[in-house]
Amino acid sequence: MSDRLFSFQIDARDEGTGARCGSLTTPHGTVETPAFMPVGTAATVKGLEVDQIHATGTRILLANTYHLALRPGEEVVARLGGLHGFMGWNGPILTDSGGFQLFSLAQTTKVTEEGAVFRSHIDGRLFELTPEGAVRIQEMLGSDIAMVLDHVVGLPNEERAVRDAMERTIRWAERCRRAAARPDQAQFAIVQGGLDPRLRVDCAGRLAELDFPGYAIGGLSVGEHPDDMIRTLEATVAAMPPGKPRYLMGVGRPADLLEAVRRGVDMFDCVMPTRNGRNALAFTDQGTLRLRNLKHRLDDQPIEEGCPCAACLRSRGYLRHLFLAGEMLGPILLSIHNITYYQRLLAAAREAIKRNCFESFAARKTAGWANGEPSDEQ
Amino acid sequence: MSDRLFSFQIDARDEGTGARCGSLTTPHGTVETPAFMPVGTAATVKGLEVDQIHATGTRILLANTYHLALRPGEEVVARLGGLHGFMGWNGPILTDSGGFQLFSLAQTTKVTEEGAVFRSHIDGRLFELTPEGAVRIQEMLGSDIAMVLDHVVGLPNEERAVRDAMERTIRWAERCRRAAARPDQAQFAIVQGGLDPRLRVDCAGRLAELDFPGYAIGGLSVGEHPDDMIRTLEATVAAMPPGKPRYLMGVGRPADLLEAVRRGVDMFDCVMPTRNGRNALAFTDQGTLRLRNLKHRLDDQPIEEGCPCAACLRSRGYLRHLFLAGEMLGPILLSIHNITYYQRLLAAAREAIKRNCFESFAARKTAGWANGEPSDEQ
Repeated sequence: MSDRLFSFQIDARDEGTGARCGSLTTPHGTVETPAFMPVGTAATVKGLEVDQIHATGTRILLANTYHLALRPGEEVVARLGGLHGFMGWNGPILTDSGGFQLFSLAQTTKVTEEGAVFRSHIDGRLFELTPEGAVRIQEMLGSDIAMVLDHVVGLPNEERAVRDAMERTIRWAERCRRAAARPDQAQFAIVQGGLDPRLRVDCAGRLAELDFPGYAIGGLSVGEHPDDMIRTLEATVAAMPPGKPRYLMGVGRPADLLEAVRRGVDMFDCVMPTRNGRNALAFTDQGTLRLRNLKHRLDDQPIEEGCPCAACLRSRGYLRHLFLAGEMLGPILLSIHNITYYQRLLAAAREAIKRNCFESFAARKTAGWANGEPSDEQ
Repeated sequence: MSDRLFSFQIDARDEGTGARCGSLTTPHGTVETPAFMPVGTAATVKGLEVDQIHATGTRILLANTYHLALRPGEEVVARLGGLHGFMGWNGPILTDSGGFQLFSLAQTTKVTEEGAVFRSHIDGRLFELTPEGAVRIQEMLGSDIAMVLDHVVGLPNEERAVRDAMERTIRWAERCRRAAARPDQAQFAIVQGGLDPRLRVDCAGRLAELDFPGYAIGGLSVGEHPDDMIRTLEATVAAMPPGKPRYLMGVGRPADLLEAVRRGVDMFDCVMPTRNGRNALAFTDQGTLRLRNLKHRLDDQPIEEGCPCAACLRSRGYLRHLFLAGEMLGPILLSIHNITYYQRLLAAAREAIKRNCFESFAARKTAGWANGEPSDEQ
């Protein structure tokens, strides 16, 4: 892809940490980083209209190649305007490659050097996903950023299995790079290597030689201890090209985001704000709130004072009522609030980086989460 | 209620029919009539944020007293700002009295002169609803327009049962009128009398003597033949006070609305646009569309050319995908489209009345519904 269509520029660095602010330019606009991408699995962020998504502060979305390839099929999306036209979102979109879903959702029958054969979690049909296929599907979807197909393995695992998957991920990245043809789509490589810093550093260095426009850290947040994730992340980031965007896939809780930003991560996606929102869990600076709780029955406070989102125009009592009555508007409003919470958190982080006070900002946030109302993290 | 807070003014009459345009003024604003009220049963129009409801052209909503009294309870709504504050809708709201739900939803154990004893459809708890209770609950809900408690019976039925229910409805209306205390809430009476024009005319005349600020026609659209409904409606409207708003409860299909407007009805509510929308059925000037249909798989047209709603910014193919994938956004977007369709239909009807061409307008719409694509009315 030409540099005019896609670029990444670092605008500010925090003096006390590895945190940095950047501008990620894509054919559908520029996004300030660190950036959070809500998950629009099936070409919709569940329950939200595109103007509601934009109002949360979101400027870039993620969509899932695996899900869209199974339903409605990439041909349908391509014929109906590509992802942007299909779903009506005119900002940047990143698609994953399906690698993670092969690991988490599909019944994967066989991974060979050629690719993965799997059964659809929807109807059990047999599919094959190769590196070249993942590129072709994402080119048909028409996302701004496509991910290479990676081989994800569960953790903990034997060193041999982790190393093999990492090596295969590098070979597949090379094949994806060769297969890419669309000039208006940037391709990011994915660093694998489990929880072994040596494997991670090796993988990051070898992928860096291939000079991708961006790099992701995959295979984390799959059940390992948070300390292990942070330790692995730190080693990995240090080995990644400093001038390219760094994307930590599938992470995470607000505290995880700050830990990663602190170490120089620029992009995130996670289902946590939306999935938790649908389950009546709201994020605040004082920890999480469970809106179904009886104590909110007559509570006339908003979820969070000062939050400008649509949910916070209502009382906790109203939101509780919506959940108890099984009304769609409950999940919708809490998804709006939680995405807004994540976007405001990263907007404040960007501000703190520009003012060289990320460390104290993160400490203040962390203290609030720990010392607020009894929290129900999940 | 004082005339300053509530008034109805007829602004235009169609020369060729009984159709008329009016302005209904409430403490929360003025509504042009004929007006359609989407149903916000549990203090939410299912799946829609209040700004999305407003964008459909909706200026007045209906909420259900029966449902809100059972959950969350009128005390909770009152403590959390009344219906307007609770749900965040600042325009006019009409509440029904619960009479229809006693008939359709609850297991009504006994109707006496005093009131009705029934079991909640949610948890089987025993409740009593009296005329005075229905007034008290609606005053706590704080709607702009409250309905008297009426006694609804199934059709067809023995003349004796229909007459008894009609007589009881008049006595209950008198009790409701005496019980009403809130100066910022108008109370509408309900004409009953089954499909018997003599009973309807008798009921309408006797309620007119009580000088309510508005009158509804209840107990129709409960399974009778559309011709019977129209015939009964015509006789009833003729006996209703010409200077007061006339509200046809629970009706109906677009064609029913035009038949009723033609005869001088000013207000409507119906679950049809939202319930059908949630089931992937869309209203258009060429009849209805089933968005799950395979023929829409690659259909890049909007539901209806020229419709300004959010759904019509997307293709039929995208909407079909949302329904097949079980995504909330499908029901949301089709609810938005269908309510917009109803509101645009009545806006065009108002325009036609002002231009004295309602008859030709209605004929054109009716021809479109009949002659368009194969239609799946339901």
